[in-house]
Amino acid sequence: MEDFKVTKVIDIGNGVKIGGKNFEIIAGPCAVESEEQMYEIGKFLKDLGIKLLRGGAFKPRTSPYSFQGLGFEGLKILNKIKEEYNFKIVSEIMDPRDIEKSCEIIDIIQIGSRNMQNYSLLKEVGKLDKPILLKRGMSSTIREWLMAAEYIEAEGNKDIIFCERGIRTFEDYTRNTLDLVSVPIIKSLSNYPIIVDPSHGTGRWELVPSSTKAALAIGADGAIIEIHPEPSKALSDGRQSLNFNEFKKMYKDIEILKREINNDRNG
Amino acid sequence: MEDFKVTKVIDIGNGVKIGGKNFEIIAGPCAVESEEQMYEIGKFLKDLGIKLLRGGAFKPRTSPYSFQGLGFEGLKILNKIKEEYNFKIVSEIMDPRDIEKSCEIIDIIQIGSRNMQNYSLLKEVGKLDKPILLKRGMSSTIREWLMAAEYIEAEGNKDIIFCERGIRTFEDYTRNTLDLVSVPIIKSLSNYPIIVDPSHGTGRWELVPSSTKAALAIGADGAIIEIHPEPSKALSDGRQSLNFNEFKKMYKDIEILKREINNDRNG
Amino acid sequence: MEDFKVTKVIDIGNGVKIGGKNFEIIAGPCAVESEEQMYEIGKFLKDLGIKLLRGGAFKPRTSPYSFQGLGFEGLKILNKIKEEYNFKIVSEIMDPRDIEKSCEIIDIIQIGSRNMQNYSLLKEVGKLDKPILLKRGMSSTIREWLMAAEYIEAEGNKDIIFCERGIRTFEDYTRNTLDLVSVPIIKSLSNYPIIVDPSHGTGRWELVPSSTKAALAIGADGAIIEIHPEPSKALSDGRQSLNFNEFKKMYKDIEILKREINNDRNG
Amino acid sequence: MEDFKVTKVIDIGNGVKIGGKNFEIIAGPCAVESEEQMYEIGKFLKDLGIKLLRGGAFKPRTSPYSFQGLGFEGLKILNKIKEEYNFKIVSEIMDPRDIEKSCEIIDIIQIGSRNMQNYSLLKEVGKLDKPILLKRGMSSTIREWLMAAEYIEAEGNKDIIFCERGIRTFEDYTRNTLDLVSVPIIKSLSNYPIIVDPSHGTGRWELVPSSTKAALAIGADGAIIEIHPEPSKALSDGRQSLNFNEFKKMYKDIEILKREINNDRNG
Repeated sequence: MEDFKVTKVIDIGNGVKIGGKNFEIIAGPCAVESEEQMYEIGKFLKDLGIKLLRGGAFKPRTSPYSFQGLGFEGLKILNKIKEEYNFKIVSEIMDPRDIEKSCEIIDIIQIGSRNMQNYSLLKEVGKLDKPILLKRGMSSTIREWLMAAEYIEAEGNKDIIFCERGIRTFEDYTRNTLDLVSVPIIKSLSNYPIIVDPSHGTGRWELVPSSTKAALAIGADGAIIEIHPEPSKALSDGRQSLNFNEFKKMYKDIEILKREINNDRNG
Repeated sequence: MEDFKVTKVIDIGNGVKIGGKNFEIIAGPCAVESEEQMYEIGKFLKDLGIKLLRGGAFKPRTSPYSFQGLGFEGLKILNKIKEEYNFKIVSEIMDPRDIEKSCEIIDIIQIGSRNMQNYSLLKEVGKLDKPILLKRGMSSTIREWLMAAEYIEAEGNKDIIFCERGIRTFEDYTRNTLDLVSVPIIKSLSNYPIIVDPSHGTGRWELVPSSTKAALAIGADGAIIEIHPEPSKALSDGRQSLNFNEFKKMYKDIEILKREINNDRNG
Repeated sequence: MEDFKVTKVIDIGNGVKIGGKNFEIIAGPCAVESEEQMYEIGKFLKDLGIKLLRGGAFKPRTSPYSFQGLGFEGLKILNKIKEEYNFKIVSEIMDPRDIEKSCEIIDIIQIGSRNMQNYSLLKEVGKLDKPILLKRGMSSTIREWLMAAEYIEAEGNKDIIFCERGIRTFEDYTRNTLDLVSVPIIKSLSNYPIIVDPSHGTGRWELVPSSTKAALAIGADGAIIEIHPEPSKALSDGRQSLNFNEFKKMYKDIEILKREINNDRNG
Repeated sequence: MEDFKVTKVIDIGNGVKIGGKNFEIIAGPCAVESEEQMYEIGKFLKDLGIKLLRGGAFKPRTSPYSFQGLGFEGLKILNKIKEEYNFKIVSEIMDPRDIEKSCEIIDIIQIGSRNMQNYSLLKEVGKLDKPILLKRGMSSTIREWLMAAEYIEAEGNKDIIFCERGIRTFEDYTRNTLDLVSVPIIKSLSNYPIIVDPSHGTGRWELVPSSTKAALAIGADGAIIEIHPEPSKALSDGRQSLNFNEFKKMYKDIEILKREINNDRNG
C-alpha cells in the first residue's frame, strides 16, 4: 500500500468504526417509503451483519413534482427500525432549521451533492458533535471538496467522512463518472476517511458489485449502497438499487476480498 | 428574430423593466467592501444612467478563510446608496433565515450558482412577492435549471429572471464556459426573461465587452457586470472586474448596438 | 471593439477575403449527396450572393455503417458546381493520401474535429499553398488548438482559418456547447482569422440564426452553415440544417447587422 | 464476479494471452529515448517476468516543438531489445503509410487517444492480422469507442484490445479522470478484452499502484504502465512514470492480489 497519511478513525458507536483497516458497508434504500418497507430491509441487513442503515427522509429531487421524501415522518420510521435492530442511522439534512430535531435520530448526518457548497448548512453541522458524511458535489474539484470540509472543521467538528459519488462528465452511459482515483488523492491530502457511493456513482445496479470491489482495492474505508426489496417499484432510484439476493452475493464477495487484502496489508 | 414564446416583462419598479425589447445592464462590484467604495461606484453608475446596482453582502467563497462579505453591515451600506441615488438593488441570499431581514433592502434576490439546487432556499424565496434572479448552477443542465425555477414558481412567485453565468468544462483559459446558446433555448422553453453574466462567465475582464455584445445579439434581456474602481485591489474577483473607463466604453458601445438591433427588430 | 492583434486577411481568390472587416458566410450541405442536390443548392446560394460553397465528400462518421460520403465521386460533383457557378470550395480531407488528388478541386481544405490532433495529416497540409480551415477538436483546449495550428505553420503554410464548432460538455440539450468566447481569445493569442460553425455547435437548426448573430457581434470573421433543400431527408445532420427559406431570412438579417456593426466600427 | 459475456482470449504468441483469467502487465517507457535506456529497462523487466514491452517510437505531442520520438530509429532499438530478451512489442502508429514497415517489429499496434476516430488509420489496421490496442479517445463516449472498434472489425481484424486511459473532465488534480467503471461496461457490451492505463489515466506516478489494483479488482484483463530508470530525466511524461523500485513493489503486490482474486473466482 502507498504511504498515505494515517487516516483518522471515526467512532460511530456500537462498535462501528470508519477509517483504519476496516471497510464498512452502509446500506439501505434511497428513500424511506413506509414502515413495512423499512422493517423488511432492516431485518434483512441486520441478519447479514450490517450495522449502518441509510435511508432518505428529506430527498432533494430535481423536479418539485417528484416524490420529496416523507420528512419527519420518515425519520420516525427510521427511529423505530433503529431501536428494533440496533442500527446507526445515516440520513441527509438539507435545511439548517431541521438539524436540531433530526439529530435525535440521525447518527451520521449526510450532506448531499447539491449542498456541498451550501455554506450556511456546512457551518451549522460544523457546530455539532456528530459525524458528517460529506458527499462530493457533482461538479466539484477535489480542492473544492476539501475546502467544503474546512467549513465544517473551522466550526469545531472534526468527525468528517468524505464520500465519492461520481462526477458529471460527457459520458452518458452511466449516471455519473465514478472517480475512484479521488480515494488515494483524498487520503494523501487529508487525514479523514473516505467511502464510495457506487449506486449514485454509476446509476446502474449491475455495475455496483464490481465498483465496490474496486473501491476496496483502491483503499476506500467503506461504501454506501442502495438496496430495495423490489427495485422496479422504488419511488426513487430503483435503477441503481440492488435487490436482496444481489446484495447478499456482493456482500459475501466483499467479505472475502476484504480478508485477503487485509492479510496482504498485515503480512 | 426567431419566433420565441413571448417573454414576460418583469416590473422592477422605478421605471425599470426586464424582458420585452429592453436590454438592461445591472452593474456593481462583486462584493460590498466599504461605504466609500460603494458611494464611488454608485455615483459613477448613476451618472451613466444605470438603475440597477449589484453588490454582494453575503459571499459564498470556496474557502472558509477567504473574505466572506460584510453580511448585514454590507446590506446597510447598500441601503444608503440606494436611498442616495435611487437604485434598485440586486444581492444574493444564501440562508433562508436571512430572507426576511434582507427583503427590506434587496429588490431582486439573487440565488447563486452554488445554491441553484438548494431546494429549501428556493421554496422560501418562492413565497415572496419579489423578483428572483436565478443563476444557473455551474454544472446544471438547462433542464435542471428550468426545474429549479419550478421550485420557485410552485410556491407562487412568478417573477423569475434566469441568469446564464457559464458552465464548468475542461477548458481552463476561461473561468467557466459561457453558454450563450442557452439564451435562445431558455426563451423557447420558458416565458421568463434571461440575462447573462459575462464577468463570471469568462473570469477575465478583457472578454466582458465582446461577450456582452454577443449576449445582446443572441437575444438576452440584459447583462450583470462587475465593476470596481481599482480591480487589482478588489477583495474578490478583481480579475474579472472592469474599471470605470472600460465600463463606460463598453456601456456606450452597447447603447449603440442596442439601438441598431431594436431598429432592426421594429423595422 | 477590443484592441486585438490585427487579424491576417486570407485571400481565397475570386474577390473573397477572410479576416479584416468582413463577415463571410460559407454555406452548403453537410454531405454531397447527388449532382441534382448540389445544383439546386448551388443555384440558390449563387443567387443570394454566397461565394464559398461547403460540401463533404469524405465524411467521418461515428459508425462504419453510416453513410460515409461519396468520396472522389463527390468531389467531381463539387467541381461541376464550382465551374458552373464560380464558387470557391470548402471540403474536408481525412487521409494524407487523398490530398494531392483533392487539391485540384478544393480551395479551402477543412481539417475536421476528429482530426485536429492527427499530426501526420496536419504536417501534410502544412506543406500546401492553400488555406486550411482548422476545426477545434471536440474536447480541445484553446491552447491545444493553437498548437495544432503550429503543426501546420511549422511546415510553411501560414494561411490558417480557425473554426469554433462547439465543445463536448455535460449539457445534452445541444449537440455541443458552442464556445463563442473562444473567438476573442483566439484573436488575442493569434493573428489568424476565426469563423464559427453554429450548425455543429448547436446541432439544432432553430438555434443557428441567433448563434450566427452572436458570432458576428463577438468579432468572428465568418460562419459556416449547413443548408439542405429538404433537411428531413438529408443523409446526415438534417436536424441541424436550415432549409432555403430559413437560410434566406437569416442571411438578410446578418447582412443588416453586419452593416450596422461595421458602421459602428468605422464611426 | 458478474455474469459478463465471455471475453475473447487474444493470443499474442510466446505464451502470452490477453483475456480470460489472466491480468497481464505491459510495461516500458513512454518514449524510446536511446538504446542504452531500452537495454536497462528491458533487462529489468525481463528479470521480473514481464513479457510485453511498450515503448513509443512515434509520439503524438501537443506541441510540434516537443520531442516527437525517434521514429523508425526507435523501432530499430525496440527490435534489438525484442530479440535480446524475447519480448512482444507494443507501440503506437499514427500514419497509415508507416504500417507496413512497422509491422515487422511491432506485435501489438497501439492506436492512441488522439487517433481513436482517425478512420483512415482504423481501416488500415483493420486489414492486418495483428492485435490492435485501441485506446479510448480522451473525450469519447463508450458508444463511440465501441464504434471505433467496429471500424477495425469491419475490415476483418477481430483481435482488438480496448484500453481505458482516462477521460477529460473539469478535475485538474489528475491529468485525466480514469473511468474504471468503463471496464465492466465494455465487458457487458463487447466480447473483447480491456486493459487499463493508469499512467495516463492519472498522470501521477504515486497514484498508479492503487489504480492498478482497482483495475484488477473491477475485472480488467491487464494494465499498461510507464516505467523509467530516472523519471525526472524522461523526455516525456516523467511525472507519471514509476522508477524501478516503485514498479517492483507494485508488481509484487499485484501478483499477490491476482492470486487471491483468482482463487476466489475459481473457488
